[in-house]
Amino acid sequence: MPQSKDQRPPAKRVSDSFTTMCELVMPNDTNPMNNLMGGNMLRWMDIACAICAGKHSGRAVVTASVDNVAFGSAIKVGEVITLEASVTRGFNTSLEVFVEVFAASMQGTNPRKTHSAYFTFVALNKDNGRPVPTPDVLPLTEIEQQRYESAIRRRELRLVLAGRMKPEEAIHIKEIF
Amino acid sequence: MPQSKDQRPPAKRVSDSFTTMCELVMPNDTNPMNNLMGGNMLRWMDIACAICAGKHSGRAVVTASVDNVAFGSAIKVGEVITLEASVTRGFNTSLEVFVEVFAASMQGTNPRKTHSAYFTFVALNKDNGRPVPTPDVLPLTEIEQQRYESAIRRRELRLVLAGRMKPEEAIHIKEIF
Amino acid sequence: MPQSKDQRPPAKRVSDSFTTMCELVMPNDTNPMNNLMGGNMLRWMDIACAICAGKHSGRAVVTASVDNVAFGSAIKVGEVITLEASVTRGFNTSLEVFVEVFAASMQGTNPRKTHSAYFTFVALNKDNGRPVPTPDVLPLTEIEQQRYESAIRRRELRLVLAGRMKPEEAIHIKEIF
Amino acid sequence: MPQSKDQRPPAKRVSDSFTTMCELVMPNDTNPMNNLMGGNMLRWMDIACAICAGKHSGRAVVTASVDNVAFGSAIKVGEVITLEASVTRGFNTSLEVFVEVFAASMQGTNPRKTHSAYFTFVALNKDNGRPVPTPDVLPLTEIEQQRYESAIRRRELRLVLAGRMKPEEAIHIKEIF
Amino acid sequence: MPQSKDQRPPAKRVSDSFTTMCELVMPNDTNPMNNLMGGNMLRWMDIACAICAGKHSGRAVVTASVDNVAFGSAIKVGEVITLEASVTRGFNTSLEVFVEVFAASMQGTNPRKTHSAYFTFVALNKDNGRPVPTPDVLPLTEIEQQRYESAIRRRELRLVLAGRMKPEEAIHIKEIF
Amino acid sequence: MPQSKDQRPPAKRVSDSFTTMCELVMPNDTNPMNNLMGGNMLRWMDIACAICAGKHSGRAVVTASVDNVAFGSAIKVGEVITLEASVTRGFNTSLEVFVEVFAASMQGTNPRKTHSAYFTFVALNKDNGRPVPTPDVLPLTEIEQQRYESAIRRRELRLVLAGRMKPEEAIHIKEIF
Repeated sequence: MPQSKDQRPPAKRVSDSFTTMCELVMPNDTNPMNNLMGGNMLRWMDIACAICAGKHSGRAVVTASVDNVAFGSAIKVGEVITLEASVTRGFNTSLEVFVEVFAASMQGTNPRKTHSAYFTFVALNKDNGRPVPTPDVLPLTEIEQQRYESAIRRRELRLVLAGRMKPEEAIHIKEIF
Repeated sequence: MPQSKDQRPPAKRVSDSFTTMCELVMPNDTNPMNNLMGGNMLRWMDIACAICAGKHSGRAVVTASVDNVAFGSAIKVGEVITLEASVTRGFNTSLEVFVEVFAASMQGTNPRKTHSAYFTFVALNKDNGRPVPTPDVLPLTEIEQQRYESAIRRRELRLVLAGRMKPEEAIHIKEIF
Repeated sequence: MPQSKDQRPPAKRVSDSFTTMCELVMPNDTNPMNNLMGGNMLRWMDIACAICAGKHSGRAVVTASVDNVAFGSAIKVGEVITLEASVTRGFNTSLEVFVEVFAASMQGTNPRKTHSAYFTFVALNKDNGRPVPTPDVLPLTEIEQQRYESAIRRRELRLVLAGRMKPEEAIHIKEIF
Repeated sequence: MPQSKDQRPPAKRVSDSFTTMCELVMPNDTNPMNNLMGGNMLRWMDIACAICAGKHSGRAVVTASVDNVAFGSAIKVGEVITLEASVTRGFNTSLEVFVEVFAASMQGTNPRKTHSAYFTFVALNKDNGRPVPTPDVLPLTEIEQQRYESAIRRRELRLVLAGRMKPEEAIHIKEIF
Repeated sequence: MPQSKDQRPPAKRVSDSFTTMCELVMPNDTNPMNNLMGGNMLRWMDIACAICAGKHSGRAVVTASVDNVAFGSAIKVGEVITLEASVTRGFNTSLEVFVEVFAASMQGTNPRKTHSAYFTFVALNKDNGRPVPTPDVLPLTEIEQQRYESAIRRRELRLVLAGRMKPEEAIHIKEIF
Repeated sequence: MPQSKDQRPPAKRVSDSFTTMCELVMPNDTNPMNNLMGGNMLRWMDIACAICAGKHSGRAVVTASVDNVAFGSAIKVGEVITLEASVTRGFNTSLEVFVEVFAASMQGTNPRKTHSAYFTFVALNKDNGRPVPTPDVLPLTEIEQQRYESAIRRRELRLVLAGRMKPEEAIHIKEIF
């Protein structure tokens, strides 16, 4: 049930909800090889993105989907990870958040980018639990502009993969294949 | 650095590593609306899949990627979730695992399927941390056969999304678009 | 205050509430010798049995007692444990659950049975917190039959140990001593 | 493989290893009815008893068995529980610990005894992981004397239940049935 | 808004709310050098003091301030720490609690005092969340008397450091500088 | 055992180790009034400051002391807290870190500053566990300059309170009283 466009709050800047979070990798976050378990990384990514989505929408938010996440270099116990989350685009009642993860030793050595992913959230009315319109994004920098534009392709891909759009209707994806 | 084919262990059946895990949703697993947080679900999926991948490969495994995960109906505190993980296909040193999640009240009421996702793992030699060949899968049922065949398309999609394959080389995906 | 027999729900099969749960032993679950602490094992047994008891009774359940638990071989960090819980018998408002624990490495090597125990639960009416009748068990296999019959002796032993039955009244136990 | 009696360290007093521990019941320790889950109570009992057994034996200890534990009145989130553990008797390489649990509101109101149980531990040589002799107990008070004497019957019961002693050999138990 | 003095409950003895708590240092409580992290120690101190303050005041309490805490010798994973908390003085709606921490191996070797600190709590009316008068302390021993008297200087210091009292008004501190 | 001044690494800018960390307050972090427990806040402050101190010193660090911490407005479950930590001054082998805490709802409403504190860390040589010289701080802004200068008074106060300096030797404090 789409909401009329005029109910939608005005677009906001990316920087207004930019969220940074850091975590120290504790022994219990690791697998038997002493590396951070993939599942804990996913959990932290979800929290950072949810905080970012909450700030942007001014609403309660729930995770709607996670895009393909590739795991890069292993992260050791005692290392510090930094997550940076920023909204890329608002789609009526949902919004997409991009998160990048960086790791380094606690002494700042061996800094590197280790992960990135797109999470999608739905904004909810806390009283009745139903989706509500969210602000769109005002992309200001070149990179914000790129992420804003490519968001439409990722959205099509999610709909196709979820079986809610036929592949031949994914017109923005077809352009690149 | 691909391993020669003859080093690869013989294929195994899906049922040999089928893994089922259940969890009771505790207060700390929830968001302020009393629903299970998406990030905790991702963490449990990763653990169930890792156990399954470890059994199939007989090796230490690390998460290599997670495919698009769609989140369905909300799960309440006090509900029981059941995760079922099974390997779909082995690709030389990596293997793909499919996981389905079911939820129900602790009394067994309101049973429903809530999530599904594909996780990919790399099998490692524990001594030197380098990838080692994993057994392929012997698909026996129709559904195992379908998942085995579609695995090649999902793999292409991951490689394209990770920038390690050009879209035009993704020949199995092109067939469906 | 015993409930009249006709209020009691019809007996159910053991397989309808059979519960399996697996856990990966994390660093924080261990003692300084890197083995799983006994207390964590007891906690997981209680959760698996409570899920099983909830499914069988269709009610909120609370732990009423734990029988003698013997601890076998040590379980190492990084090993996978599998708990299998099944109801053995229903006693009006309480029911007994049998749980077995198996351990193996994450690669499936060194599989072994490590623990077993009987937990008893009381089924409650969630609104007033008072005990309610639970279904009895329909034992179908030989092992289910054996556990069903010996349940009466374990119940007597619990009552004697709790000081709620005189040793000389424990007629089923007396037969074996 | 029994150790010769002269290797055994001299007996110690109960008060030398008496251990008291208190815990505040947090939201995550509870079940959906907001009461402390039985499994968490068992875990805390095990920790308190292990600390007590470690002090008495001066050795690394592992849980060998837990006797029948009866659960009394429900404990609410925000209540404070106090566990008191004391050794009752040493049996060559194992020792028995008695633990009592008391609960009260954080304001000290509604104080009550809620649980008690016997845990058995084996003392280990940390270097080779093999059982080592533990000191016996010097019972000084009447209650210490009672627990010391009844320990032999509980030990027989454990051995019978574990299938390591024939019921007819349990001479101290037979006296009371 | 100060409460009138006559509303205040009668003073209580220190021993009535003396609180002792012990914890086993688990792997996840440590930093990458395998020592207990300072932050976990602070968290346990706060819990022990809150339980003590709750018992003394018979009220819900919230932490108002923590005085200078000095960290002594490192505490290793697997060691047991014992916290002892006792009220020193009540100040109308707040009260000060002194906590000492002792550490030892699980076998009781290497016992030592490692930390001490003063925590201040405010007692609240649970219904409206407003501060309520708390009982003062009846100091009986010499050490209780010393802590009772020096409490007034610590209170001045807190008020000065919080900018709520001018240094020149801190008459009891001025005496010692 | 003081290190010679010439071994000391060159001073660094505050901004090079500025650390920001955010946390979502989960149910288990709260007290029975649904507010964040003081002890959890202290734990997070310690982690944020330790990460900051690690980056500045390029060394393993351990908490040496925490100054007077005043607790302001209560923080509710589901709120987001942001911690900002920055070094204020290096003292040979120790360094002082200032941390401020801000809270807001997950939707960004009700933003407020809730806590601030000074933590002191000692930098260690990881191989022998002995203190090593740390870089001093290059204060660039007015506020950095103020914190740098007042650090000497806080250090005197810590030494007096720890009984390692006589009050009359605290020359910088005496100036203000």
